[in-house]
Amino acid sequence: MTAVRGARERVAAAYARIKEADRPEVWILLRTEADVLADADRIDARPAAGEELPLAGLLLAVKDNVDVAGLPTTAACPGFAYTPERSATAVQRLVDAGAVVLGKTNLDQFATGLVGTRSPYGAVRNALHPERISGGSSSGSAVAVALGIADLAIGTDTAGSGRVPAALNGIVGIKPTLGLVPATGVVPAARPYDCVTVFAPRLVQAAQAIRIMAGPDPADPLGRTWPADVRLAAPPAPRIAVPDRAALAPLTDAARAAFAAAVDRLAAAGAEVAVVDVAPLLAVAKLLYDGALVAERYAAVGGHLAAQPADADPTVSAIILAAASLPAHELAADQRRVDEARAAASELLAGCDALLLPTTVGHPTLAEVAADPVGVNSRMGTYTNFLNLLDMAAVAVPAGTADGTEFGVSVVTRAFDDQVGVDLAALLVGEAVADPLPAVGLDLVVFGAHRTGQPLNRQLVDAGARLRGTVHTAPDYRMLDLRTTPPKPGIVAAGPGLGGRIEGERWTLSPAALGAFLAALPAPMTLGRITLDSGEEVTAFHCDVPPDADVIDVTEQGSWLAYLATRGDVGSPA
Amino acid sequence: MTAVRGARERVAAAYARIKEADRPEVWILLRTEADVLADADRIDARPAAGEELPLAGLLLAVKDNVDVAGLPTTAACPGFAYTPERSATAVQRLVDAGAVVLGKTNLDQFATGLVGTRSPYGAVRNALHPERISGGSSSGSAVAVALGIADLAIGTDTAGSGRVPAALNGIVGIKPTLGLVPATGVVPAARPYDCVTVFAPRLVQAAQAIRIMAGPDPADPLGRTWPADVRLAAPPAPRIAVPDRAALAPLTDAARAAFAAAVDRLAAAGAEVAVVDVAPLLAVAKLLYDGALVAERYAAVGGHLAAQPADADPTVSAIILAAASLPAHELAADQRRVDEARAAASELLAGCDALLLPTTVGHPTLAEVAADPVGVNSRMGTYTNFLNLLDMAAVAVPAGTADGTEFGVSVVTRAFDDQVGVDLAALLVGEAVADPLPAVGLDLVVFGAHRTGQPLNRQLVDAGARLRGTVHTAPDYRMLDLRTTPPKPGIVAAGPGLGGRIEGERWTLSPAALGAFLAALPAPMTLGRITLDSGEEVTAFHCDVPPDADVIDVTEQGSWLAYLATRGDVGSPA
Repeated sequence: MTAVRGARERVAAAYARIKEADRPEVWILLRTEADVLADADRIDARPAAGEELPLAGLLLAVKDNVDVAGLPTTAACPGFAYTPERSATAVQRLVDAGAVVLGKTNLDQFATGLVGTRSPYGAVRNALHPERISGGSSSGSAVAVALGIADLAIGTDTAGSGRVPAALNGIVGIKPTLGLVPATGVVPAARPYDCVTVFAPRLVQAAQAIRIMAGPDPADPLGRTWPADVRLAAPPAPRIAVPDRAALAPLTDAARAAFAAAVDRLAAAGAEVAVVDVAPLLAVAKLLYDGALVAERYAAVGGHLAAQPADADPTVSAIILAAASLPAHELAADQRRVDEARAAASELLAGCDALLLPTTVGHPTLAEVAADPVGVNSRMGTYTNFLNLLDMAAVAVPAGTADGTEFGVSVVTRAFDDQVGVDLAALLVGEAVADPLPAVGLDLVVFGAHRTGQPLNRQLVDAGARLRGTVHTAPDYRMLDLRTTPPKPGIVAAGPGLGGRIEGERWTLSPAALGAFLAALPAPMTLGRITLDSGEEVTAFHCDVPPDADVIDVTEQGSWLAYLATRGDVGSPA
Repeated sequence: MTAVRGARERVAAAYARIKEADRPEVWILLRTEADVLADADRIDARPAAGEELPLAGLLLAVKDNVDVAGLPTTAACPGFAYTPERSATAVQRLVDAGAVVLGKTNLDQFATGLVGTRSPYGAVRNALHPERISGGSSSGSAVAVALGIADLAIGTDTAGSGRVPAALNGIVGIKPTLGLVPATGVVPAARPYDCVTVFAPRLVQAAQAIRIMAGPDPADPLGRTWPADVRLAAPPAPRIAVPDRAALAPLTDAARAAFAAAVDRLAAAGAEVAVVDVAPLLAVAKLLYDGALVAERYAAVGGHLAAQPADADPTVSAIILAAASLPAHELAADQRRVDEARAAASELLAGCDALLLPTTVGHPTLAEVAADPVGVNSRMGTYTNFLNLLDMAAVAVPAGTADGTEFGVSVVTRAFDDQVGVDLAALLVGEAVADPLPAVGLDLVVFGAHRTGQPLNRQLVDAGARLRGTVHTAPDYRMLDLRTTPPKPGIVAAGPGLGGRIEGERWTLSPAALGAFLAALPAPMTLGRITLDSGEEVTAFHCDVPPDADVIDVTEQGSWLAYLATRGDVGSPA
């Protein structure tokens, strides 16, 4: 994702593309090309000064319910506008990494809608099919990316706003676990369920942005951090839950076929597919708008809408103001129902690594939405509404076309299994994502029976460990055949320059997984630091065998796999 | 805590004590002595059959908002009564461990109150001062323990109900982190903030009960488990936050002196004391009853009270029914205020291991409460109301007397730091608690620089590790002086019977702490399994030194400390 062109060049190209695309409704505030070029020049100067910026010169669009310092935040309601002094934490982290903000994008007002039409700044047309909707509420952000104007765009997602527009515009949208990306500087929609998301053309780019945006922010009272036992990889043979036929009834035949193709693709990549009854999950959608939870939206912006009704989108206003008179005890009761549904979802998915779902239902035209704004919107949230209520994460990726328009699927995971979702989505889109999102991993180098394809590798896989590649030790170690069952090497220090360069695999796993791995390790295996031939020091297998142990020095083989090959037992894991 | 008498004998003594004490208002349902004796006989038969029961024959009183199979649950409202088929998970776990249920105890109706007088089953008199209140809402449970009738009693705590009666009756009450002890089978008071608690005469007994009651229960939608990086011990030099003088203004001079004595006791035990402004914490109490959160209580039992007002305690009923018309958006807004207060509390206590507070304010007479039921109740919650809202844990222990009655303090900790609270409370009451509450610890045996008092011991202390005692290896290892700075031994395998029995310390730490400890370990130290002289295998220090390393074999010393003593450098940690 390194910028191949300088920031200045990228900006010029983006403004040409903006002009060419002629989609003014994408932006609530587009910065002047001169202002953005000034930022770009500052970015271009920094690598020259020796600074490494992972997002150097990438162009960022920001949904207009997320603060950018010095630009008004409207949430698509002109009368609500204020100009923040500070950028939202998520924006600031991307900017600190080298991204350049193009402007603020249109949205369904107060992020209430999945259609992209509920805005006094205009209905946002789909990037590929202008007579159809963009999807929302992060309408402008998704279209700015899909049109090739922005490299990255920030969205938000309470009920699907970061996923539905990704699906309809054929791009990637990641909705991480609630609280991982700080919501500081975001206009609340339904605060406990609000989430900052990202759009990008490709999964690697979106994952990189989430990695950069995630992390503790003391100013976010609902912030959460990666748990100490977080999984850092999807297993190579994941178990994927998929809905039964009844739950797919809202789809057309073509959409069902596109969904089935995505399932087949995962199966072909090694996944085991389990059909589950997702009706209890989908039923949770009713709580979001038909129950008392909509009072969260009133608490967020109802006061403004009640006092200044002139600026309001009539559909949004009707939904939110209707919540004014809901009783508090009904909200409490609905929150208990959500708690129960969350527990039930956890049982429903027990034993599965993820759930694959269509991202949305159909792709309405602008006219269809105008004719039935609430009904169409509701259908579009069928597969997204429940997710944040049940504290789950999702990665929305393109999955071909159906009925002449883009079709998308979402890999849904439990909270904090975000990386599992990214890895499974990578199988769907044929990308390779290297670095895990969680920043808590600890490295472990293994030499023998724990390597890929070897008999004890499952211990690492089950611990959520992630393979980072092949490494070699400095020439300071000896490798012994311990003559165990299964066969295992033992690595021991030989003294600087007095041993061989031993080949190993580097894995990353959570601190808790590393601790548990150590605690389960039988004698004579031990773990401690080794020096790699790069000079880097990393935790690795050693062993502690008594001086008289019946072992064979196989250092000269350089690799346990090479040694096994000489014995004829490579490729026959127990 | 092993039962010194058989269960039958204990039951007989308890019923004699019940008769002698003559406090019928303690019980809503006292089982017949014959029924309890039948249970006791079953318990007495089990150790004879070779079964080990940690709570064999201990007598348990259960607050009557917690289900016991086959006994009616009233929540102190006769018309609300139902007879559950299953016991609450917390009760069942104690019974499975050998406890025998005596009966169901009185409470402030629907656990709404801190006084113990709000019950149609009668106001509960204090165990030691019958003209004064018991405190509540777990009134009968606390008094049954304080009178020496029950060995353990289950309470519940939403705003202080598991702590205030402990303080007023001179016993121990533990209110664990929300969700650790399942709330399955408990009548909700304000469900998100409800917590099962335990009373016992001594801290060790209460801690043992919590250890047994805690653990996952799929039936509890708000259940939580110990995090993988949980601290398993308070540090030997803890930093304790204490309120400033202004925050202690509600106390009498005598109570302030008793509180100061408790602070002094912690300081004398090695604690560093930091005066903090706890006003923001205490201010949260207002949200609990003066805001919209009381709608949680309406959601729990308001429907019953509205439909069947005859059985209601008038004070309780007035509080809960007033919540019927609160708007949902105000509840949502107050929940956001709670979120913000929780984050602020976390910052307020940054760098501190715990906060010491008086448990309650004063000790009113029954007459004083009758004269001002709401005002007195409110004052009594000054130091307890905020706690569950802010997701904190507390251990309430006796701390002498003030103004002729019992005075108590509470050690308040962050969520999941329950063991830190127990350890600090142990300093206050002069008890020693051996086993930690969290069941997630992994053992590590250290031999040299990480031992107590040695230069690297702080690494274990900072990781929340808990010392479990001194151990010796099987005679299979050699101990080397690695000639490092600071001095460190290296343990290596010598072969069965070919080495010495090396003395070490066994520590327990969380999986994540063990993983992080390993990852930070410099060469040539390694970790892996050793065999103790008991035959037990446990993770311990090894080392991997090259054959030509310049080390000294000091196996014959048997202990690194003994070896250091021969060199004259014991007791001089770096």
